Amino acid sequence: MNEAILLTERDAYGLPGVVRLTMNRPAAFNALSEAMLDALQRGLDEIAASEARVVVIAGAGRAFCAGHDLKEMRAEPSLDYYRALFARCSQMMLTIQRMPQPVIARVHGIATAAGCQLVAMCDLAVAASDARFAVSGVNFGLFCATPSVPLTRNVPRKAAFEMLVTGDFIDASTARERGLVNRVAAPDQLDDATRALAASICDKPRAAIAAGKGVFYRQLETGMEAAYQLAGDTMACNMMDDAALEGTQAFIEKRAPRWRDGES
Amino acid sequence: MNEAILLTERDAYGLPGVVRLTMNRPAAFNALSEAMLDALQRGLDEIAASEARVVVIAGAGRAFCAGHDLKEMRAEPSLDYYRALFARCSQMMLTIQRMPQPVIARVHGIATAAGCQLVAMCDLAVAASDARFAVSGVNFGLFCATPSVPLTRNVPRKAAFEMLVTGDFIDASTARERGLVNRVAAPDQLDDATRALAASICDKPRAAIAAGKGVFYRQLETGMEAAYQLAGDTMACNMMDDAALEGTQAFIEKRAPRWRDGES
Amino acid sequence: MNEAILLTERDAYGLPGVVRLTMNRPAAFNALSEAMLDALQRGLDEIAASEARVVVIAGAGRAFCAGHDLKEMRAEPSLDYYRALFARCSQMMLTIQRMPQPVIARVHGIATAAGCQLVAMCDLAVAASDARFAVSGVNFGLFCATPSVPLTRNVPRKAAFEMLVTGDFIDASTARERGLVNRVAAPDQLDDATRALAASICDKPRAAIAAGKGVFYRQLETGMEAAYQLAGDTMACNMMDDAALEGTQAFIEKRAPRWRDGES
Repeated sequence: MNEAILLTERDAYGLPGVVRLTMNRPAAFNALSEAMLDALQRGLDEIAASEARVVVIAGAGRAFCAGHDLKEMRAEPSLDYYRALFARCSQMMLTIQRMPQPVIARVHGIATAAGCQLVAMCDLAVAASDARFAVSGVNFGLFCATPSVPLTRNVPRKAAFEMLVTGDFIDASTARERGLVNRVAAPDQLDDATRALAASICDKPRAAIAAGKGVFYRQLETGMEAAYQLAGDTMACNMMDDAALEGTQAFIEKRAPRWRDGES
Repeated sequence: MNEAILLTERDAYGLPGVVRLTMNRPAAFNALSEAMLDALQRGLDEIAASEARVVVIAGAGRAFCAGHDLKEMRAEPSLDYYRALFARCSQMMLTIQRMPQPVIARVHGIATAAGCQLVAMCDLAVAASDARFAVSGVNFGLFCATPSVPLTRNVPRKAAFEMLVTGDFIDASTARERGLVNRVAAPDQLDDATRALAASICDKPRAAIAAGKGVFYRQLETGMEAAYQLAGDTMACNMMDDAALEGTQAFIEKRAPRWRDGES
Repeated sequence: MNEAILLTERDAYGLPGVVRLTMNRPAAFNALSEAMLDALQRGLDEIAASEARVVVIAGAGRAFCAGHDLKEMRAEPSLDYYRALFARCSQMMLTIQRMPQPVIARVHGIATAAGCQLVAMCDLAVAASDARFAVSGVNFGLFCATPSVPLTRNVPRKAAFEMLVTGDFIDASTARERGLVNRVAAPDQLDDATRALAASICDKPRAAIAAGKGVFYRQLETGMEAAYQLAGDTMACNMMDDAALEGTQAFIEKRAPRWRDGES
């Protein structure tokens, strides 16, 4: 079991509904080989269809993730192969954003190239204070074009451009200032900090979180008027949920909501 | 007069052309009831059509605004009612952005849910150092979808997501770092700071500010080439205004512009 | 030669492939007269078609650039003239973004109005610690509409709005915090800092940088799914370059890449 390329832990951190996926190729710094991409795709698809509430993505060993598996990529070069590979990777990345559960990156060591992209694609990220981030493909002649997609939607434009053309690392504190991660914790408190963030989401009604995450990204891709239309419709439907009706009633009565199992 | 749900003060802070609207339901933390939404809509529409230069939105009592009026909202639940309510609220919010005058949020106490949305929608915001901000609907099962529209256009993506799924408060200093407010002042200097910001806009030609505000938001919703087309046309027209011709001439002659009343 | 309106230095900072363009109207704070706009357009077009790797834009004398030449602009006011002038300036600004080489603004003294726009349009910017930035047209009645196009794509929305309606200066440290510049250096180390940034780009394969810069801006103007499609195609093509094949092979073999001249 511990030799699987991707470890799945349910009720992680002692929190019902939290699933932790741990990339488990420590000797390769958890490089995103085809097998790893497939395992992540399968793991995320299963969680998306489940009652899980929060996903944590982590890496085994000394690094979070060092990006694509260059050895595998370099073996039989062909344009068609690379097109298919990046499409498959992009599909996995988009799944993170499209699934109903919030996804937290738990980052330690290094997150480089597509590993940095993975952090950027997650809805939330918690980093160890000694973690480092780079989109370093340019160092060996391969501009991190697909990583630039979520990076530029996390980090100010000039800062993202600098990372992409220099390949330089930034530290965890800089990553937080620029918007790439939410929280930074001492290395030995990284799991506590990840747990605390997951816990603060777990006690919210699932349907509200799922609908909210969906509209969050959709409205970002439209103009403001269309965004309000989308968001208003979502919120009206959300308000008719039993959980919201009970939650607002509880608020009015100054008591804790009595959510049924499966609601909260 | 002091019992009106919305207090209107003209030439506020001793500045001609500055209108201050004060939400006046202190016992309800200035919740945005239907009556409050209507009063704001009417007040903003009147100002939009007037010669006013700057609007300040403030709250009476201990809070800026605690969002929708949950008691009223909860009374007779229906999808149609909620759709209409959020559409009405969104309309008022969009009016802030579409009116020709810059609108400043003067924030003290708490700004939560649609109250935080109101801060995000204003063109500018000044906060007391002890003010706190949250999009807290998720705490009672109602994801702040409409507040997410302006919030995600003010604050970096992961920081906005975190606020929306945790419902946690951020303080004024964090709000400034993340782009939700422009300036933070000691509580007893909040009005001085608001006045200073309003004053620095009041002495600029009205037509330039109005045209500039309009193009500011329109160009943000297009690609860069279309944005330059829009902005270039606006600027060419602006340059033909008497105020700009006099202002540039004064600049060349190293003297103060002699703007006629109504121009500056 | 030193009297040309635009000075061109090849292999600047002792770095082969770095071209430095120095705006040379120091008495006019390097104002963007029609002649200056033409010289910049011609200079950038030539570099775009050349083997150069990095461009640095600098200003002679006490300022980086004070924006449009108001005296020239004010001489014969006409709507058609202003439309043509702003279109010409916008064209030059867009050329910076569309050319294959990264462009670095080297900023000292002041960068105001279209001078601040020039900083915002460059891919990267290094500023002296005593440099100051403003979009100050509103002070003489001309809202900086075209500068707002790149400014709002660099700086958070409310901060950009404040600069545009107040005309106030921000210092270099604030400019860095808000995303308008990448790095700040002591005035006497501005050239060292500019050189260091240019050098870290120069040793990367040219084709990867060019393709990467192109897709960087294109993908920003689409939704995320289309962005991934664009970026994946770019990256697959990039991976088939000799430079990337050698670079990845070198990485696997833990040695430095042996790039042929013209590749790296």
